[in-house]
Amino acid sequence: MLRPWQVSLSERLDAASATPVYLQIIQALIRDIERGRLKSGEFLPSSRDLATALGVNRKTVVLAYEDLIAQGWLDSAGTRGTIVSSSLPEPVRNARTPKAAHPAESEAQYWFAPPPARPLALPSGPGLKLDEGAPDGRLFPADPLARAYRASALKASSDNRLQYRDPRGSPALRDSVAAMLRSQRGLNVRTENVCITRGSQHSIFLASQVLLNPGDTAVVEELTYEPAVAAFRARGAKIAPVGLDADGIDVDAVEAVCRRHAVKAVFVTPHHQFPTTVALRPERRLRLLELARQFGFAIIEDDYDHEFHFGGQPLLPMAAYAPEHVIYAGSLSKLALPALRIGYVAAPVAVIEALAHIVSLVDGMGNTLTEDAAAELMENGELRRHARKVRNVYAARRSQFAEALAETLGEVVDYSIPDGGLAFWLRFHRVADLDKIEAQAPGLGLRFATSRSFMARDDAPRGLRVGFASLNPGEARAAIRALKSALD
Amino acid sequence: MLRPWQVSLSERLDAASATPVYLQIIQALIRDIERGRLKSGEFLPSSRDLATALGVNRKTVVLAYEDLIAQGWLDSAGTRGTIVSSSLPEPVRNARTPKAAHPAESEAQYWFAPPPARPLALPSGPGLKLDEGAPDGRLFPADPLARAYRASALKASSDNRLQYRDPRGSPALRDSVAAMLRSQRGLNVRTENVCITRGSQHSIFLASQVLLNPGDTAVVEELTYEPAVAAFRARGAKIAPVGLDADGIDVDAVEAVCRRHAVKAVFVTPHHQFPTTVALRPERRLRLLELARQFGFAIIEDDYDHEFHFGGQPLLPMAAYAPEHVIYAGSLSKLALPALRIGYVAAPVAVIEALAHIVSLVDGMGNTLTEDAAAELMENGELRRHARKVRNVYAARRSQFAEALAETLGEVVDYSIPDGGLAFWLRFHRVADLDKIEAQAPGLGLRFATSRSFMARDDAPRGLRVGFASLNPGEARAAIRALKSALD
Repeated sequence: MLRPWQVSLSERLDAASATPVYLQIIQALIRDIERGRLKSGEFLPSSRDLATALGVNRKTVVLAYEDLIAQGWLDSAGTRGTIVSSSLPEPVRNARTPKAAHPAESEAQYWFAPPPARPLALPSGPGLKLDEGAPDGRLFPADPLARAYRASALKASSDNRLQYRDPRGSPALRDSVAAMLRSQRGLNVRTENVCITRGSQHSIFLASQVLLNPGDTAVVEELTYEPAVAAFRARGAKIAPVGLDADGIDVDAVEAVCRRHAVKAVFVTPHHQFPTTVALRPERRLRLLELARQFGFAIIEDDYDHEFHFGGQPLLPMAAYAPEHVIYAGSLSKLALPALRIGYVAAPVAVIEALAHIVSLVDGMGNTLTEDAAAELMENGELRRHARKVRNVYAARRSQFAEALAETLGEVVDYSIPDGGLAFWLRFHRVADLDKIEAQAPGLGLRFATSRSFMARDDAPRGLRVGFASLNPGEARAAIRALKSALD
Repeated sequence: MLRPWQVSLSERLDAASATPVYLQIIQALIRDIERGRLKSGEFLPSSRDLATALGVNRKTVVLAYEDLIAQGWLDSAGTRGTIVSSSLPEPVRNARTPKAAHPAESEAQYWFAPPPARPLALPSGPGLKLDEGAPDGRLFPADPLARAYRASALKASSDNRLQYRDPRGSPALRDSVAAMLRSQRGLNVRTENVCITRGSQHSIFLASQVLLNPGDTAVVEELTYEPAVAAFRARGAKIAPVGLDADGIDVDAVEAVCRRHAVKAVFVTPHHQFPTTVALRPERRLRLLELARQFGFAIIEDDYDHEFHFGGQPLLPMAAYAPEHVIYAGSLSKLALPALRIGYVAAPVAVIEALAHIVSLVDGMGNTLTEDAAAELMENGELRRHARKVRNVYAARRSQFAEALAETLGEVVDYSIPDGGLAFWLRFHRVADLDKIEAQAPGLGLRFATSRSFMARDDAPRGLRVGFASLNPGEARAAIRALKSALD
C-alpha cells in the first residue's frame, strides 16, 4: 500500500514534463521532507518498490536516491534500506498543502508588498501602434551592425581581460562619444566626463540616485516624460510640476518652488520638449541657469533625439555653455536602435565617478560587446552615414505626416510642425474629441500613449504625442485615418 | 581694440580642437552672455571685424551669428549690425571666472554630494590578475555568438515592433531560460516566472528594491558577496551579518536576528557559498525555510555558477522545492561571457511583475539583440555544447591548481578542493602571511580582491578567493608562484 506521500508523489510525477523524472523525484522528496510529510529517520521504500509504485525504471529511483544521499537529504542504512537523514530537524509546524495551482503564488504574499500602481508598458499586441517618436528600425542597416558585433565577439573571446570591466563603460565607446559631443554638440568634454549607460531611462535613474535624497524635491514640467517622474519618486523625492508654454518651462514657477522647497534637480528636455516638442528659449535657459546657481540644483538635460532637428542647425545643449550646472543625457536609441540600449551621460568628473558607483550597485557594467560594436559604428562612419540618410527620410515623413494631419484631422486638432524630434503634439479643439478617441481606440486595435501618461499634474493641458518617423507614408495615413475613425 | 570678452574669446578658440570653430564661437558667445560678459542689447562687432580679430574666415563668424539669431540668442539690428537679444534677462550676479582648468569641476560641488566611499572596481591595469572565479572567455566560441548576433540584428531591423519591448525581457529568452530551469534544475517554472536581467548584480539590485524598504533588515553571511551588501545598503536597509561554517550559514544566528529586527531578506549562495565555496547543508536549508515562513522574509538564492559542479550532480536549488520563499537568481556570465550581461530571476508571478516595474524605472528593458542572440545559443545547443566542453577543462584546471597550490603554498595555507564553482578559498595558517601578501602584491604587479572585500563584519575569518578557471596551467602556476614570492 502506498503511504500518503507516495500517493502525492505519484500524482505529481509528470512523464511529459521537461524536467527529467529523476529530478522530479528528487524535487518531490525534498519538498515532502520540507513540508513534514517525510520525517527524519523514516524509512523509504526500496528503490524497486518505489519504482514499481511510480511506474518508472528502477535505475531512475536509484539515481535519485544516490543524489539525495550525496547531498545529505537521505542516509543509507546499509542493507536495511534508505532513511531520511537523521540530522534533519523536525518540522515545527503542520504540513500545509498549498491551495493555488502554482504553490508559489499563494504563499509569496506574506513577504511581498506589491509596488505602487503604475501602468506597465507591456509589449505591443496586434493592431496599429502610434509611438511617441521612435525611429524606423527597418531603415537601420543590419549588416554593418552584425559585422561590428562579430568584431566585438572575436575581441571578447580573444582576451580574458575584457571580462569584468569599467562601470563607466567601454573605453572605446567613451572616447567616441566624447569626440562626438565635442565635434557635433560643442560640449567641452573629455573621456573622463562620459559614462555609458543602458539608455536614457538608465541615465535618468542613475542621475536621480546621485542627485536626490528621500524628501528632496525634483521639478518637472506639467507635461513631461513620465518614466523620469517615476524614477524620481522611486528615490523618495517629492515632485513639483510647474507650467510650460511655447517657450518652454515656466521659470518663475521654478523660482517659486525653489523658495519653498529643497530643490535638488530640475528635469528638462530643452532641445525638443517632451511631449510638446517646443524648444526652450534662450531667456528661459539663462534664468534656469541663474536659478541653478542661486538655489544649488542640478539641471538634468535629456537630449534624447538631438540628431533630428529639421529647422536649421540643432540647438547647442545647455551642457555646452554651462557644464557646471548640467547632467547631460543622450542616447543612440533614436539614431540607431532602441534595442541597442546605449545611452550616455556627460557631466563633471566627480559626478561621473559617483554615477559609476551607482552603476556598480545597479548592474555592474554595460554589455561590452554592444558598447564596442557601437564604438565601431561611430568610428567607421556608419552611424554618421545612417544619420544623414534617415534625417532626409524623416524630414520628408514629417511633411507628409503634417499634410495627412491637415487633411484628415485639421478640423479637430491644432498642431505645429516640430522644428525637431520625431513626433507631433496634437491639441484637440474639444476635449470631448480627445476623450472619444481615447475611449474608442482600443476597440479599433489602435494603440498609443494616452494623454494622461504625459501629465505630471491633473490640470495640465491634455494632448497626444504622435510619432511620425517609424511609419512609412502609407502606414502614417492609415494611422491618422484610424485616429479619425475613432471620432466617427 | 578688442573688448575683454573678445580677448577671452580669442584665447578660448582652439583651431586644433575637434569642435568646429563656428561651434566654438557659438559656445563661447553663449557662455559670455550667460556669465554677464556680454549684455542684453549690446552690439557685437561686425562679422568682418570679429573674423579678423579671431583670425578665422568671415563665413565662419556669419554662420555662428546666423545660428545664434535663429536660436534667439542674438538679434539682427538691420544694417546697424547684430546685438545680444534684448529679450534676455540681466544677470543678477557678477561674472565669475572659474578657477579650475575644467570649469565644471570647481562648481559642480555645491549641488553634488559624493556617494559613500566604496572601492570602485576599475579596469585591470597591467600585471597578473587573480579573479574571484571568472570563466575563461578565450574558450568561448566567437563564431556562433557572432552568427546569433547577426540573426538578431536582421530580425531587429526587419520589424519595427521589436523596438521598445517587455521589461521582463525577450520572450524567446524567457522561454529558453524557463525550459532550462525546468529540465536542468528542477524548478517548476513557466515563462511568466522569469524576468531577464543584466546579470546577477542587476538581479540582486532589483530584488532589493522589491523586498526592502529603508530601515528593513537584510541578513548576509559574515563572508559574502560585497556588491550585494552594497545594493541592500543603497536601499537604506540595515545589514545583519551572521556566522558561517563548513555547513553554510549559521541558522541559529539568523533566528536570533529575526527575533530582534524586521528581517525582509536573507541573501545566500547555497550551491557554492561565496566566497568560501561550501554547500549549504540540507538541515540548514530546512531551518532557513522554516524561519522564512515563521518570520516572513524572502530568501535571495544567488546560484551564480550552477553549471560548474564537479563532485557529483549539481545540488537542487532551494527554489526547486520551496519556490514560495525564494527569489532565485542565475546568469550566463559564468557559462558564456560576463560581457553578455545576461542574468535572470525566477520567482512567483507577482514578484516578477513587481521586478518588471522596477526594470521600467531603472533601465526600461534589456538589450533585445543580446537577449535574442542568447536565446538562439540556448535553442541551437551551442551553450550546452560549450558547457560540456568547459566543464571538462575546468575540472582538469581545478586539479592542476590544487597540485600547484600544494607544491607552492602548501605550508602556509589551508584549502579544500571545491565541489563546485570556479574558485578556491585560501585560509592562511598565519594571518601575518596574508597581511604580507596583501601588502606586497601591488608592488609585484599582482592584483586580486583583498580579504577585506569579502568581510561583512570586522571579525569574520579572513581569506583569499582565487579563481582557477580563467587561467591555463602555465598562467595558474605563475599566479601561485607570484603569490608565494610576495611572502619571500
